[in-house]
Amino acid sequence: MLIKHGINSGFVARTCLYMLGSSGVLRRQQFLIRSLEVGGCSDRNTITNQKAMQGIMKFTNRPSLEADAESILRAITPTLDPNRHKGQAGKIAVIGGCREYTGAPYFSAISALKIGADLSHVFCTKDAASVIKSYSPELIVHPILEESYSVRDEDRSFVSEKVLAEVDKWMERFDCLVVGPGLGRDPFLLDCVSNIMKHARRSNVPIVIDGDGLFLVTNCIDLVSGYPLAVLTPNINEYKRLVQKVLSCEVNDEDAPKQVLSLAKRIGGVTILRKGRSDLISDGETVNSVSIYGSPRRCGGQGDILSGSVGVFLSWARQKIKDGDLSTSSRNPALLGCIAASALMRKAASLGFENKKRSTLTTDIIECLGRSLEDVCPVG
Amino acid sequence: MLIKHGINSGFVARTCLYMLGSSGVLRRQQFLIRSLEVGGCSDRNTITNQKAMQGIMKFTNRPSLEADAESILRAITPTLDPNRHKGQAGKIAVIGGCREYTGAPYFSAISALKIGADLSHVFCTKDAASVIKSYSPELIVHPILEESYSVRDEDRSFVSEKVLAEVDKWMERFDCLVVGPGLGRDPFLLDCVSNIMKHARRSNVPIVIDGDGLFLVTNCIDLVSGYPLAVLTPNINEYKRLVQKVLSCEVNDEDAPKQVLSLAKRIGGVTILRKGRSDLISDGETVNSVSIYGSPRRCGGQGDILSGSVGVFLSWARQKIKDGDLSTSSRNPALLGCIAASALMRKAASLGFENKKRSTLTTDIIECLGRSLEDVCPVG
Repeated sequence: MLIKHGINSGFVARTCLYMLGSSGVLRRQQFLIRSLEVGGCSDRNTITNQKAMQGIMKFTNRPSLEADAESILRAITPTLDPNRHKGQAGKIAVIGGCREYTGAPYFSAISALKIGADLSHVFCTKDAASVIKSYSPELIVHPILEESYSVRDEDRSFVSEKVLAEVDKWMERFDCLVVGPGLGRDPFLLDCVSNIMKHARRSNVPIVIDGDGLFLVTNCIDLVSGYPLAVLTPNINEYKRLVQKVLSCEVNDEDAPKQVLSLAKRIGGVTILRKGRSDLISDGETVNSVSIYGSPRRCGGQGDILSGSVGVFLSWARQKIKDGDLSTSSRNPALLGCIAASALMRKAASLGFENKKRSTLTTDIIECLGRSLEDVCPVG
Repeated sequence: MLIKHGINSGFVARTCLYMLGSSGVLRRQQFLIRSLEVGGCSDRNTITNQKAMQGIMKFTNRPSLEADAESILRAITPTLDPNRHKGQAGKIAVIGGCREYTGAPYFSAISALKIGADLSHVFCTKDAASVIKSYSPELIVHPILEESYSVRDEDRSFVSEKVLAEVDKWMERFDCLVVGPGLGRDPFLLDCVSNIMKHARRSNVPIVIDGDGLFLVTNCIDLVSGYPLAVLTPNINEYKRLVQKVLSCEVNDEDAPKQVLSLAKRIGGVTILRKGRSDLISDGETVNSVSIYGSPRRCGGQGDILSGSVGVFLSWARQKIKDGDLSTSSRNPALLGCIAASALMRKAASLGFENKKRSTLTTDIIECLGRSLEDVCPVG
């Protein structure tokens, strides 16, 4: 993993920040050592696993958890080559969108395209499909999910199989699934989505889980447990429920890096992107933070940009690893994808806020994704 | 056919490229002669037809396959005359749009208008119609196609006749049909579309076939065989299936110009626009390439811009030929339309990419069609 000295608070004024970061670096080292001495959870739940301890130990030899997100972004973003054809820069599918929610899957899917994916699909309910389609002709929207109210009890098994078959037709073409944006919590729908996730996993398709997908996974952790191509992107509340359920303790902000590492480890090496003032990212082996300054605006929908972005960057990193063309020390595409997505999202949010201030909406941030990536990885 | 010396890699730095192209010209000549000696397919499938051989021979006396697309664009684009009335600059109809796909027919139909057609219709399913209408008030959208799931077996014959009658009412008013963008693969719907194509052919209405229309035609080549006003615009995968089906061999990239010529000849003189890094265009008599630099972005939907553009330029070329007002050596409106559309599409993609880089979407390219045409053919 590429680790940069000092806290990276932006792409520009880096030299200055190296100097400012030095006292913070010492505090961080002291904190990590203290964490090891004290432990983060109750005895029953503390991780005594030797490997996890070593995972944290690594950081004591490093001046900061902050990832060199800019280098990772450059390393995993593919060169634009005129010889490549449609689909080779990524095919993403968002599973979400129901009677209530249509914005979230749109934000996630369109963000994937704006970053540079070639094709972006949405699998949602019939009610949601026309609306999501009308937001943009660029998306391919499949009206195939069903909620309980539209299915008779005796038809459930048949409908469930039909839904699965419809997604399965496409499954192997996708480089990543993003499960959860605007999914809702209808039990029948969530049951169908569980089956979709099981099939994705069998086909080795990476899965990014956010929003109501996290509600589903928190209640049925086996869906992702032990799957290294699963990414969970919880916000503060979703993280709280996850910690309570999996570690049977409360969130410990003092020992945040250790706890997210524990959690990722306990779920068998999935990658967790804990969203917050700084994003913390762990795969159970290492922890990284991304603290690039974003925006103080907290309008709904920003998490959806992030989930779509993780989908693209994870796919790109995975392809680079397959091609033997990746210069980063980490070889975990999920971890690299999260770091890149977190950094880009923050950069775009900052640009959006610069223009629109309090008025900044998610759509404004999406419009800044392209320029933000171009600032870091110019196409030449 | 207007042929330019050297490889045309852009509208601007042409003089310079004439010089750079000279060694490529020699290589091209050598390659063409080699093609004639070696042959492109298995014995059973090689074209031994004397005329086709002559078609290739023409190029050995010419410095390059590259068409002078800029001159063709200027020659076929009609002067804007205040005395003309609505419809005289082109009436295009797109047959496509189903439950899954709504973006593709929109892209195709709106591109036709943005280039300068007067009226653009879409014939699609009921599910798709409201969505396509919502993308733009500029289009006339007919919700008349039906998919199997919405038609009872006993109603099929009646519904099929009704669909045909609805399109037929308009048929003679159209200058061109574009069949396939977002059509889907529902068997009943494709059956109805086959009938529409037969009627169009009987009325001598040109037909551009792309996307799922190519799936239909590849499985039933008689629909277009021997119809000189048919244009097929396959991408890499669609071309592969077409070659396998019609020539019973694999794609031969070494002998690409010869193979596309063979294919067009074998389908009885339809025009084929084989999309790729360079587009290859043949009507079975001649082969031309368009290599103007476009964009390395491969987002979905660019093929739909092209199919709508071919529809307009083919119609314009046909009108100019009817009026005895065309200065090009070729008199095949399908060939001229393809060269013009390929060139304009590439120019617009290049402009779009200049602005938006990796973030470029199909909508951004469509917004550049007007300026791209204006750069070549200013209205005065």
